[in-house]
Amino acid sequence: MAEQLFPYQQLADFTQAIFQQIGCSESHAAIATKSLLAADLRGIDSHGVARLSGYVRLWEVKRVNATPDIKVIHETPSTAVVDGDSGLGLVVAPFAMQIAIEKAKQVGTGWVSVQNSNHFGIAAQHAMMALEYDMMGIAMTNASPLVAPTFSTDKMLGTNPICVAAPAGTEPPFVADLATTTAANGKLEILQRKNLQTPTGWVQDKDGNPSHDPHALKSGGALLPLGGDREHGSHKGYALGAIVDIFSALLSGANYAPWVPPFPAYVPMPAQQPGKGIGHFLGAMRIDAFRPADEFKKSMDHWIQGFRNAKPVAGEEKVLVPGDPEREFEAERMTNGIPLLDAVVNDLFLLGERFGINLQP
Amino acid sequence: MAEQLFPYQQLADFTQAIFQQIGCSESHAAIATKSLLAADLRGIDSHGVARLSGYVRLWEVKRVNATPDIKVIHETPSTAVVDGDSGLGLVVAPFAMQIAIEKAKQVGTGWVSVQNSNHFGIAAQHAMMALEYDMMGIAMTNASPLVAPTFSTDKMLGTNPICVAAPAGTEPPFVADLATTTAANGKLEILQRKNLQTPTGWVQDKDGNPSHDPHALKSGGALLPLGGDREHGSHKGYALGAIVDIFSALLSGANYAPWVPPFPAYVPMPAQQPGKGIGHFLGAMRIDAFRPADEFKKSMDHWIQGFRNAKPVAGEEKVLVPGDPEREFEAERMTNGIPLLDAVVNDLFLLGERFGINLQP
Repeated sequence: MAEQLFPYQQLADFTQAIFQQIGCSESHAAIATKSLLAADLRGIDSHGVARLSGYVRLWEVKRVNATPDIKVIHETPSTAVVDGDSGLGLVVAPFAMQIAIEKAKQVGTGWVSVQNSNHFGIAAQHAMMALEYDMMGIAMTNASPLVAPTFSTDKMLGTNPICVAAPAGTEPPFVADLATTTAANGKLEILQRKNLQTPTGWVQDKDGNPSHDPHALKSGGALLPLGGDREHGSHKGYALGAIVDIFSALLSGANYAPWVPPFPAYVPMPAQQPGKGIGHFLGAMRIDAFRPADEFKKSMDHWIQGFRNAKPVAGEEKVLVPGDPEREFEAERMTNGIPLLDAVVNDLFLLGERFGINLQP
Repeated sequence: MAEQLFPYQQLADFTQAIFQQIGCSESHAAIATKSLLAADLRGIDSHGVARLSGYVRLWEVKRVNATPDIKVIHETPSTAVVDGDSGLGLVVAPFAMQIAIEKAKQVGTGWVSVQNSNHFGIAAQHAMMALEYDMMGIAMTNASPLVAPTFSTDKMLGTNPICVAAPAGTEPPFVADLATTTAANGKLEILQRKNLQTPTGWVQDKDGNPSHDPHALKSGGALLPLGGDREHGSHKGYALGAIVDIFSALLSGANYAPWVPPFPAYVPMPAQQPGKGIGHFLGAMRIDAFRPADEFKKSMDHWIQGFRNAKPVAGEEKVLVPGDPEREFEAERMTNGIPLLDAVVNDLFLLGERFGINLQP
């Protein structure tokens, strides 16, 4: 598939303009743009500008409110619940994370559960907000039900990612951002486009049999929890996805389990709505609430160097530290531009045409 | 292998007496006994009384202090660092969890990182302490390095478990307790005893090749992170194990990564000691710091029932909720007794003989 390269700023200007066209304030549009394009920069192509028209479609069906009144509806010194007022998760999550950070400044840690939100892009973007304050950042979200728990054919959970970011000293920060499934949906999409088989443990068919069909979800199949099957620990991936759901939605009053609103606007909402919108969970822990930040960072450097120097398996170049691949993508793409598939470029072109905005000025 | 059944109280009396014989106070011995035997009750046989002689050997080589001065060495309203003074983790972890609970009472959440401790038994026992306070409980620990990160032949992490416990209403609590490896070491030990092959993705050999040898660790091999290999998401299991290490040891000043002291007393301590003892992380979140506890519990009941009613794959009885199997073990074993392998019984018999305590009165 052919690709075109776009400078970051060009995509950012376009995205900002689209968000303003649907009614976002200039500042909200800027936050949403930064959140969304962080995915493109970090190489998570499925979660970036390729989804811009999807967000617009959610606005069209009135599931996204472009002018939300995002507010704290309950709090204690170390916790808060935020009502996102159906706003873009791309805007709601940074709002909630900032509250977590402010609470951590006051009492050591801050923990914010969010209801009534929408898809928030990549978790790492929000968790990493804590780093500049010498804090660890945590971000989770629930998501459209695509994943069958161990022993089931029903899709009960989303890919429910967990991100933890921790600052280091001379080394770059540790940033682990992982879907709690064997493979993220974006990886499946790549195999769909190329019409390649999926490895064992990624998907099952409608009857719960192991499948290698990248299109299995379209015929009633499901993504599988990290582990793949019971023998390989899928009950652990399922438990992790469940933990994310409980933190994000049960603590906040958002929808959970199979009742999470689907991302594609054309998929009807679940008949049952036990909560409001989708849920996130954001946390910040001040390092010096535990020990002096410089001591911690020195230990993190030592930890990271220990892993980088671990002996690689023959044929493998080196052991990676969580966050390495995404950081390399970011450096490369900030310099050379962001590659977009022709299909994505066409989609953006049509979106621009509709709102009178040129993608390629 | 033949087994014998022992009533819980008989094993508890024996264990209590042994801990007192090595110098623990009556109250510390009682806490340690409760922590240790929780594993036997919940069906995690590898972590229970079978390890009692292992703890005694750690005391013999002066790596366990039977009369520790466990204390808080740093704190903020929502955080603390505890120095376990080389005490039994079985005693240090409940001490730290109680501090987390007290902090949560005051400011909504409490988070305690622990240095200078030892093996703490099963994580669930500590996390579940929060339940009676209408709090969620979190427990993690690092452990002896047995696990190779993705692409490496070096053993850099422990099986580093994560437990999250959440209260429900009419349903039993949600309790997810998982090693961040494909299979816990205890499962491997079962295959070793039976001389059966391990499934793919559990272990690798000394060169990092996939292995089915349950004895692979004895010849330089390693346990594999949850996922097994890169294609099946082992970089996620590795990242989760790393997160546990950072929370437990980097925040507290304990040893981390390959420098964690090994559990078997006969294995020499690592030459390098970047911290003190092993590390744990305990957390408590007051439910009503987010929303009314009865609302949350009602949602948890609905969530749990949703999963129990999910359609099972043909041939599978039902979908389990995290904590179900362990709770069923506990009910059954509290009534019918705890089965111990003859090898474990012999080991306990010799231990009792040495300290003048009858296992079977």
